[in-house]
Amino acid sequence: MFAHNKRLQYTVRVRETNPGLANLMLEQFGGPQGELAAATRYFTQAIAEEDPGRKDMLFDIATEELSHLEVIGNIVLMLNRGAKGRLAEGVDAEGDMYRRITGAGNDSHITQVLYGGGPPLTNSGGVPWTAAYIDTIGEPTADLRSNIAAEARAKIVYERLINCTDDPGVKDALTFLMTREVAHQKSFEKALYSIENNFPPGKLPGDPRFTSVYFNLSQGEPVPAPGPWNDPAHFEVVSDFEQSLAVDGGTGLPSCGMTPEEVTAVSAMAVRTASNPQSDPTTGAELGATPQAAAEMGVAPTTR
Amino acid sequence: MFAHNKRLQYTVRVRETNPGLANLMLEQFGGPQGELAAATRYFTQAIAEEDPGRKDMLFDIATEELSHLEVIGNIVLMLNRGAKGRLAEGVDAEGDMYRRITGAGNDSHITQVLYGGGPPLTNSGGVPWTAAYIDTIGEPTADLRSNIAAEARAKIVYERLINCTDDPGVKDALTFLMTREVAHQKSFEKALYSIENNFPPGKLPGDPRFTSVYFNLSQGEPVPAPGPWNDPAHFEVVSDFEQSLAVDGGTGLPSCGMTPEEVTAVSAMAVRTASNPQSDPTTGAELGATPQAAAEMGVAPTTR
Amino acid sequence: MFAHNKRLQYTVRVRETNPGLANLMLEQFGGPQGELAAATRYFTQAIAEEDPGRKDMLFDIATEELSHLEVIGNIVLMLNRGAKGRLAEGVDAEGDMYRRITGAGNDSHITQVLYGGGPPLTNSGGVPWTAAYIDTIGEPTADLRSNIAAEARAKIVYERLINCTDDPGVKDALTFLMTREVAHQKSFEKALYSIENNFPPGKLPGDPRFTSVYFNLSQGEPVPAPGPWNDPAHFEVVSDFEQSLAVDGGTGLPSCGMTPEEVTAVSAMAVRTASNPQSDPTTGAELGATPQAAAEMGVAPTTR
Amino acid sequence: MFAHNKRLQYTVRVRETNPGLANLMLEQFGGPQGELAAATRYFTQAIAEEDPGRKDMLFDIATEELSHLEVIGNIVLMLNRGAKGRLAEGVDAEGDMYRRITGAGNDSHITQVLYGGGPPLTNSGGVPWTAAYIDTIGEPTADLRSNIAAEARAKIVYERLINCTDDPGVKDALTFLMTREVAHQKSFEKALYSIENNFPPGKLPGDPRFTSVYFNLSQGEPVPAPGPWNDPAHFEVVSDFEQSLAVDGGTGLPSCGMTPEEVTAVSAMAVRTASNPQSDPTTGAELGATPQAAAEMGVAPTTR
Amino acid sequence: MFAHNKRLQYTVRVRETNPGLANLMLEQFGGPQGELAAATRYFTQAIAEEDPGRKDMLFDIATEELSHLEVIGNIVLMLNRGAKGRLAEGVDAEGDMYRRITGAGNDSHITQVLYGGGPPLTNSGGVPWTAAYIDTIGEPTADLRSNIAAEARAKIVYERLINCTDDPGVKDALTFLMTREVAHQKSFEKALYSIENNFPPGKLPGDPRFTSVYFNLSQGEPVPAPGPWNDPAHFEVVSDFEQSLAVDGGTGLPSCGMTPEEVTAVSAMAVRTASNPQSDPTTGAELGATPQAAAEMGVAPTTR
Amino acid sequence: MFAHNKRLQYTVRVRETNPGLANLMLEQFGGPQGELAAATRYFTQAIAEEDPGRKDMLFDIATEELSHLEVIGNIVLMLNRGAKGRLAEGVDAEGDMYRRITGAGNDSHITQVLYGGGPPLTNSGGVPWTAAYIDTIGEPTADLRSNIAAEARAKIVYERLINCTDDPGVKDALTFLMTREVAHQKSFEKALYSIENNFPPGKLPGDPRFTSVYFNLSQGEPVPAPGPWNDPAHFEVVSDFEQSLAVDGGTGLPSCGMTPEEVTAVSAMAVRTASNPQSDPTTGAELGATPQAAAEMGVAPTTR
Repeated sequence: MFAHNKRLQYTVRVRETNPGLANLMLEQFGGPQGELAAATRYFTQAIAEEDPGRKDMLFDIATEELSHLEVIGNIVLMLNRGAKGRLAEGVDAEGDMYRRITGAGNDSHITQVLYGGGPPLTNSGGVPWTAAYIDTIGEPTADLRSNIAAEARAKIVYERLINCTDDPGVKDALTFLMTREVAHQKSFEKALYSIENNFPPGKLPGDPRFTSVYFNLSQGEPVPAPGPWNDPAHFEVVSDFEQSLAVDGGTGLPSCGMTPEEVTAVSAMAVRTASNPQSDPTTGAELGATPQAAAEMGVAPTTR
Repeated sequence: MFAHNKRLQYTVRVRETNPGLANLMLEQFGGPQGELAAATRYFTQAIAEEDPGRKDMLFDIATEELSHLEVIGNIVLMLNRGAKGRLAEGVDAEGDMYRRITGAGNDSHITQVLYGGGPPLTNSGGVPWTAAYIDTIGEPTADLRSNIAAEARAKIVYERLINCTDDPGVKDALTFLMTREVAHQKSFEKALYSIENNFPPGKLPGDPRFTSVYFNLSQGEPVPAPGPWNDPAHFEVVSDFEQSLAVDGGTGLPSCGMTPEEVTAVSAMAVRTASNPQSDPTTGAELGATPQAAAEMGVAPTTR
Repeated sequence: MFAHNKRLQYTVRVRETNPGLANLMLEQFGGPQGELAAATRYFTQAIAEEDPGRKDMLFDIATEELSHLEVIGNIVLMLNRGAKGRLAEGVDAEGDMYRRITGAGNDSHITQVLYGGGPPLTNSGGVPWTAAYIDTIGEPTADLRSNIAAEARAKIVYERLINCTDDPGVKDALTFLMTREVAHQKSFEKALYSIENNFPPGKLPGDPRFTSVYFNLSQGEPVPAPGPWNDPAHFEVVSDFEQSLAVDGGTGLPSCGMTPEEVTAVSAMAVRTASNPQSDPTTGAELGATPQAAAEMGVAPTTR
Repeated sequence: MFAHNKRLQYTVRVRETNPGLANLMLEQFGGPQGELAAATRYFTQAIAEEDPGRKDMLFDIATEELSHLEVIGNIVLMLNRGAKGRLAEGVDAEGDMYRRITGAGNDSHITQVLYGGGPPLTNSGGVPWTAAYIDTIGEPTADLRSNIAAEARAKIVYERLINCTDDPGVKDALTFLMTREVAHQKSFEKALYSIENNFPPGKLPGDPRFTSVYFNLSQGEPVPAPGPWNDPAHFEVVSDFEQSLAVDGGTGLPSCGMTPEEVTAVSAMAVRTASNPQSDPTTGAELGATPQAAAEMGVAPTTR
Repeated sequence: MFAHNKRLQYTVRVRETNPGLANLMLEQFGGPQGELAAATRYFTQAIAEEDPGRKDMLFDIATEELSHLEVIGNIVLMLNRGAKGRLAEGVDAEGDMYRRITGAGNDSHITQVLYGGGPPLTNSGGVPWTAAYIDTIGEPTADLRSNIAAEARAKIVYERLINCTDDPGVKDALTFLMTREVAHQKSFEKALYSIENNFPPGKLPGDPRFTSVYFNLSQGEPVPAPGPWNDPAHFEVVSDFEQSLAVDGGTGLPSCGMTPEEVTAVSAMAVRTASNPQSDPTTGAELGATPQAAAEMGVAPTTR
Repeated sequence: MFAHNKRLQYTVRVRETNPGLANLMLEQFGGPQGELAAATRYFTQAIAEEDPGRKDMLFDIATEELSHLEVIGNIVLMLNRGAKGRLAEGVDAEGDMYRRITGAGNDSHITQVLYGGGPPLTNSGGVPWTAAYIDTIGEPTADLRSNIAAEARAKIVYERLINCTDDPGVKDALTFLMTREVAHQKSFEKALYSIENNFPPGKLPGDPRFTSVYFNLSQGEPVPAPGPWNDPAHFEVVSDFEQSLAVDGGTGLPSCGMTPEEVTAVSAMAVRTASNPQSDPTTGAELGATPQAAAEMGVAPTTR
């Protein structure tokens, strides 16, 4: 169960109203790498986790991410607060309001008109947050890798946001949030590597004929030097495309068993919809072709 | 530029029509951990990659994932092929067709009625594929971690699909696809660790006051043993909630600068929408309350 | 800032594994009327609220809804826990596993295969949660009405879920959750009606010519008795369709000012894409018509 | 069944081409509070309504909202018409066209390039309309509350749009549309309150132990005065967090019955994926740490 | 402006309650090829159409499609009506209700629990309708082709639904709806071909070097006979992959101009994130490898 | 199976960094008419196609569209490359970076901050690509019409993009891509018309009573001249609305069979939720009305 305290984990100090910057900050409120995604990712994992230590860790970090959602939401709100009041009370001349919310350096119109200046759960482009962002699958050796990656991405997005503002209070709070992603990544790394036999993830081993093959499918100039990812010391590199086809030794063609009724039905469908390869049909495109197009198709121009 | 050969990378042999199983297989065709997600993930990274060796690797693997999309698509198609013919040609009595596509062990109705038995880019529940599944952000030290995690997840979903079928040809092809995820993970791991200074990702260092703090925010019984993710040898553990508040030493309350006009407008909005805390207003709920609810609210039951 | 305790607000006691029922319960975990929607709805409103009392109330209720998300998530997990173990460890014969997750009374395959038996943020049909469910617009006299409606809807969905299970522990926990929606509705009603002048919401008055008009646009039998919503005592009822057209007294046709260049460009587009109303063109449909269709269209059947 | 007349319900007079403003107006065409949402919301409720009078009202209002969709669509079109011609006919120098559709005060590029200047069913940020915006659940005492809230929201968004334009014809038509939302809200209010026993909605009563409890879960400074929503005269206020836990008197911990096979499988999964709490594993992060990060983690910097 | 009559365009007679069939019917209510998509597609085109005759036609057909939406909505409702009453009033024993809405041949649980048995704007799998289904782009020579295709698709989906039911009233109404798609396609065909010079659509001609080239990019067995789509009489067939590369005669490699500052920044990023191709780094996967995986990678098994 | 060559099908030469233009180009990368939609549309059709010649054609064109996705992706990347370096390395003063990514003529902030300057699978407004864009239904006579329409749309969007840039290398590559859509449309036309009896699509004939009826449902001024789409020579035009109702000759009212238990349950629901038409209830709106609204409603203003 959760409890809440009105004090933030980190004090938010915004210098002045800036709805355009508020908009950018939404990336970490309702964006794919943002704090709602982080909080719900760890919270749902925590519920399902069987290992008591990791369950505790996941609740700890989920709770902190919720608290970060509150911090970034307050940054958005403080950057919007003055503008929100103006629009709600209609204090600007109409043209001024329009310019204010659509002008250069400020595409905050959705935030203002639709959401009234509060922090909506969208990314900076106005796309509503979706649980499709969350990639939890319920296997710790995969989910912990996903969490490590998620923290790495969030760290980078904060870094870019820091590069976009010169408001010292905003920079300061963003730096705290960015730093915490680093700390969380460290915890998730420890949790992953404290599981023995975490690679390959899951239970079934791979087919040993194919676990160390590297198919060199992109060819042509420029040809780079090999790297550790396709070093023949570790990988069997297959560069001949023919040898990449039907590597099981079969025909490479799909087949399926069907009942006689199914064969009949499929054949009937095939016949009904067959194209006649010998035909040279007049087409709709030819009926309406421009003179140039008609000439290119070798048909007479349409006359009407 | 791409070229295509009609032979598959792995031969698909399906024993018999099974639209319900076809549906499950969609998870890896148009699902979040599936092959379209993998192929487009690496393809878009390949385009943007500055390192020539990694660019080559990303194109190699993207091309293979496209080829896997073709393999899994053919598994779906072969499992559906007989059923597709029956529906298209209307060869079943109506009740039979209805039972066939909605019956026990088979919720393939969307696949059949809407998509005609071809492989649609949806997951097994019919949710259309979305690029929101792809978490590429354009920083290699984050994206390679995302790729490692994506391969781990895909490996697990294949493992579960293998556990759901006893068709030997399907199992065989799925095992090949699962194995290749293992091989790809190995390549991405090599690529990540061949970047020096890959942790923390990006360029800005964290604030050293907070990089090794662990906030113990989930408390109460049961209390698990500490693990390496919050071991005091590596982390400064903060268990006192008061010390987790406003860790910057400030008030923990948000503030923003506003112009006098903004202050006026915000105040006007606040006054216009203020709740009177001393009021005890009659509410809409009270107007229409059931006798029990009215009693609980201490109001007279409505009479009309 | 948030804190978490490992004890739930209400004890969850599940009698036996039932993944199909777990699936239904997702409606209130990641569905449109579910607890994530409730928690994020009130949390984002709380951040933006200017009235200190209502801000406090919104945080109180948001925090409780988060705690309810945890309760319903644990119901889902407990109903799935046994099944999740079986799939992860592959302990069933393959056909059994397939039947287990797709059989009658159980369409839990997405939950099992994709999410590994953990509680995903989807509705019971597998549709990922989206912030499009949240209708907050940042004006308290509208948002409180939205909250009242949201609580009413959530109450009903819980009622239906209660009607679907005979597991006493599940019924008991659902009844608690349902009851709390009633309590929350009561608080939101009090908050709305303690704002004076809350109708019409916002600041601009309506145009008095149209605030009490009722356009009777659906006609024909059966004609019901008038009700209080179109009682002539309160509404001016307009039943003549002609009088519903262009009620401003104008032409009812749209017009716009354009520069000469714009007029020229629009005319050029119109000419370029004009249909010749005198023409009787041969169409693509006629080229490929079946004999019956050709006869209906009065064209000669295609011969090839 | 529907019929259509080419005259609008309200005459649309647009002063001059303004694609940026056209874009804002999309909020009420294809946005969440817009007229398509309103029309389809009432139309689908009308179909399912059992009460003949309310069914009639819902069709009346749905039909009017469709007519409003036409009005707002014509506002969008008229504001775009000149620009649409220019782009379609390519009459501008290229750089001019680019500046025209991406310049200050005008982010109409999606509307122009993708939709050709016609009114698309998106919000002002280009997000496609989704039926996820509609919250109908098929219980009149809930749906009428949802309708009341929807009208309140739509009224506010129109108010904001009116504040953003100084084109008198646009203001005039928007004021009409805004006013009608007020009238509709009045009808829906009458319809709700003419249902006796409409609170709590539905049929099941709440558990009386919890219908009037208020959990004071957000604490800390600033502490506002109580309001009518948590006035002890009406609510039992629980401020002690410990008393908010496991309010049923149980352990607050989830439990489930499992078969012996399930217990075995869950245990096997737990063992396979257990983290060793005594371990201090080397992690991937440590392998690639920067010197600073390595120092913070207490590991030797990587040498290669 | 629209008006409504309570009589349907076609009488709906449903034999008996069948929520599973109701669910299938949703495909044409809120599915991608359904009547809402059709109605809104033509309605939005009608608003933007400059040709008065086509504008009239588009409104005629849009209005009819709205009326069809009402017909199919009533089919859904009538099939659900009995079940809706049972759930709302809780008249079944709990287990019965669960079996009723999740049992074989009936996956109507979302419709019942979430939508209360009314017709929701989703497809038969529960996916909410989205305006992403609508492909209008505001150029009549493209949009009319899109409309022709849309009618063809809708005709087929109705055909499949007809094949799934033996309720004569449902079959009868579906046949009417299917037939009207055929009639609409005929009108759209006439409208397209009455535009002279409708191919290629738009204004810019293609580059004549490439308008009739056919790139034979899929090769390998089986090699089908050529068809009219790549008949050398009409197309220049390029089968040599090398000749498909860089057909402009350039290098086939992308290039861009950059300022010196940009060059410097890009170089810095490249250096910072470069992979060392000579390295053979220890990876995270190696740290946690199973003995088999460690052997395959040529590393020592982890000991702890 | 696919293979890849590092040379593009068409050489991309970008003159200078222009992230705003890069953003526009996304329309054809991850937009609804873009190359991913094209490639996946034809690829999935190819898998399911039974006609060997058309299957080959679909793979040929799918493979080319993938190659076009690569071309347009490289245009995006080259236009962004300089900006991407600046943001990643933080080389600008903060205010400069903010202005750079949000300034006039450049709303590329999502691309830069979230995606790091690489090409994301979104449209130009940042909306993630969705498979809902793909309208394949598995019947060739419908799918080929859909493909023809899709090529027509893509041609137009390229035409508009060409009109928006004066960078000669970008124009040149876009012209190639546009031209290829024309060539593909020609192939799809040939494929469609080489199927005999392709209209009406599918197998069931329409009901001859309704295949040539034209319902004139939009009336009122202005009345355009009839066109070939409603020419009485080909269509039976029904202009009397009464004759458009219940064209089957029935009542036009829906009906359904129900069991006695169902009748009882539906009646109970109807009674429970009935509105009393004789009532004149006080409503929530009246409780909180402004003085003006109270006067309009004929109720006393609220006093508190």
